[in-house]
Amino acid sequence: MSQLIKKIYYHDTDCGGVVYYANYLRYMEEARTEYMLERGIDLKALGEKGIMFVVKNVSIDYKAPARYADTLTISSSITKIKNVSLEFTQEIKRAGKLLVSAQTVLVCINSDFTPCQIPPELQKVIQA
Amino acid sequence: MSQLIKKIYYHDTDCGGVVYYANYLRYMEEARTEYMLERGIDLKALGEKGIMFVVKNVSIDYKAPARYADTLTISSSITKIKNVSLEFTQEIKRAGKLLVSAQTVLVCINSDFTPCQIPPELQKVIQA
Amino acid sequence: MSQLIKKIYYHDTDCGGVVYYANYLRYMEEARTEYMLERGIDLKALGEKGIMFVVKNVSIDYKAPARYADTLTISSSITKIKNVSLEFTQEIKRAGKLLVSAQTVLVCINSDFTPCQIPPELQKVIQA
Amino acid sequence: MSQLIKKIYYHDTDCGGVVYYANYLRYMEEARTEYMLERGIDLKALGEKGIMFVVKNVSIDYKAPARYADTLTISSSITKIKNVSLEFTQEIKRAGKLLVSAQTVLVCINSDFTPCQIPPELQKVIQA
Repeated sequence: MSQLIKKIYYHDTDCGGVVYYANYLRYMEEARTEYMLERGIDLKALGEKGIMFVVKNVSIDYKAPARYADTLTISSSITKIKNVSLEFTQEIKRAGKLLVSAQTVLVCINSDFTPCQIPPELQKVIQA
Repeated sequence: MSQLIKKIYYHDTDCGGVVYYANYLRYMEEARTEYMLERGIDLKALGEKGIMFVVKNVSIDYKAPARYADTLTISSSITKIKNVSLEFTQEIKRAGKLLVSAQTVLVCINSDFTPCQIPPELQKVIQA
Repeated sequence: MSQLIKKIYYHDTDCGGVVYYANYLRYMEEARTEYMLERGIDLKALGEKGIMFVVKNVSIDYKAPARYADTLTISSSITKIKNVSLEFTQEIKRAGKLLVSAQTVLVCINSDFTPCQIPPELQKVIQA
Repeated sequence: MSQLIKKIYYHDTDCGGVVYYANYLRYMEEARTEYMLERGIDLKALGEKGIMFVVKNVSIDYKAPARYADTLTISSSITKIKNVSLEFTQEIKRAGKLLVSAQTVLVCINSDFTPCQIPPELQKVIQA
């Protein structure tokens, strides 16, 4: 598991007074990137080698709204690994209260946007 | 069913060269708003009376990427109505090719963010 | 002069109840793109030839706020052309009322991000 | 002076391969908020008392692009204070290299969106 702390500013919110529902997907991207980096996987360096992870699907539940000036904690873990894809499970909390939970499936692709096998050294790191 | 046409600009894309995955949720918000308006339901006027629809969950599949300067068509229909919630099914296509499909459940809430019954006159319009 | 109509949705606003100040720069990008297209200049096709316009500076005045469900008109004109740069003057109005005005200087660059001359055929079209 | 560290993710960039020009205005909002907080000024608490700062104008120069995975430093200082307005000067750097500089004028308003005097205790803190 890995945690990212995220503070909410005006640009994160909408005129309903709460964080706009699409913006949580940004925080989840940030958290997945940091999860990978903490395990020595640099998505930028991989991208330069022609290996990218793209989102295949997201299933997200909104349980309670985050608001301006909140400090959120996003926890991330990998809950499935297959040959060409992996699944992240992520939770967004404020002071221990669960606001949002999501599963995101990412597919490993090459520079033609074709699915390809997750490199074995990566699989090892991720499974550890 | 209802359709929204949407053109893609630089701000919609990311450095992977494609539309950023969270941005499709914005287009889907726009399309749901227009769906409602076409049926005489003005979300702004409802909001001023203290009735809002908030997103409870989203399940979204990314099948192929949209790119800069693409013109997308977002089709929306309501596929379930319950007492306090409804489900939209939406598809995003480019020149007939399906890029993204999603189900979004919205809950009717009052000004305290408490779920409340969808007003019967609204239910009637939506079901028609 | 060229005009773009733009409708405001939830994702455009912030919890202050108005359109977030950075978002007007998105609408101005869209309006500049359409200005160019109406004159036969396809920024995407130019980009594929290695010619891009990047923003060098923006000076923007916020006179009155736009709000959720507003319909805005963005007018654009080119008010200066030099060898490697051009200036757009843009105004954003709601029902004739001026909300935002801005000058944006764009520089023509090649694929190395080095400034280069605006192609003469482009200069002619722009000046017409 | 005050400094904010900001890391760049996919959602910050566009298909030109660099940070989208409007997004720097978000980072500058974040940096101004942190500048205020470090001086004991809580914009959220002020907002609840009906005092807000809104952006009146921005003048921003883009000198060099930031890219995916960059770590940026945003420095902020207040360079003018008047009765109802103040000016921030902000610089965005990567490893000491200046990428963006901007002046932003903010106006103090009350809950009717009418300009009002910056509260004297605030003026004192800001000038210190």
